[in-house]
Amino acid sequence: MASLFTRIIKGEIPCHKVAEDDNFIAFLDINPNTKGHTLCVPKKEVDKLFDLDEATYTGLMQFSYKVAGALEKTVPCKRIGMAVVGLEVPHVHVHLIPINAMKDMTFQHKTEVSAEEMASLAARIGENL
Amino acid sequence: MASLFTRIIKGEIPCHKVAEDDNFIAFLDINPNTKGHTLCVPKKEVDKLFDLDEATYTGLMQFSYKVAGALEKTVPCKRIGMAVVGLEVPHVHVHLIPINAMKDMTFQHKTEVSAEEMASLAARIGENL
Repeated sequence: MASLFTRIIKGEIPCHKVAEDDNFIAFLDINPNTKGHTLCVPKKEVDKLFDLDEATYTGLMQFSYKVAGALEKTVPCKRIGMAVVGLEVPHVHVHLIPINAMKDMTFQHKTEVSAEEMASLAARIGENL
Repeated sequence: MASLFTRIIKGEIPCHKVAEDDNFIAFLDINPNTKGHTLCVPKKEVDKLFDLDEATYTGLMQFSYKVAGALEKTVPCKRIGMAVVGLEVPHVHVHLIPINAMKDMTFQHKTEVSAEEMASLAARIGENL
């Protein structure tokens, strides 16, 4: 069965899209640690980051670099944290998280952001790309 | 003042080194989340990941890919998690962490590993590069 993220990529499930090219997509995490928490995902459905072939891995990291730059311009924060865990959705995703404290990186504290604000955030990050 | 990691790179402070090339070094985290927790560090002292120039950033990620492959061959685990936070030491470092559960990624649960075992681990990861 297609992963949740493949269904998002195919447009079967909606998302707040931030960026997209031929190989990668970035959209806001629906259950964000902090405002602006974004996922960067390869369109190729692979479970583990380090099982990606090196070219796709490198492409994903370069795509994430661009998105992180735009995110940092958009959301006030101390820095953009990065994490790849993947124990829940078996489809590689790079978390980019605007952080101010370590707790913003633990995935144990979540933030409520309205759908309206998510849409506005995604658009503003996209404009800063 | 030179960062803790610059002092390690210069050999002023010892480490359990896993890998090194002209631009990057990998060594075991002295306060590991799990056994095998490794840091990949650019020799260039820059505070924030996304302030690295794109070439150094890409090189660091490719270096981390190689180290992660060797780490996964050495330490039994579900997968290798990756994180970049940087709120403590102001010198970019990529955490590579052999994980089995989300708690291994939160930096709130630490593991005691003897100096002897750290030395053996570092050598074995290095052999698997």
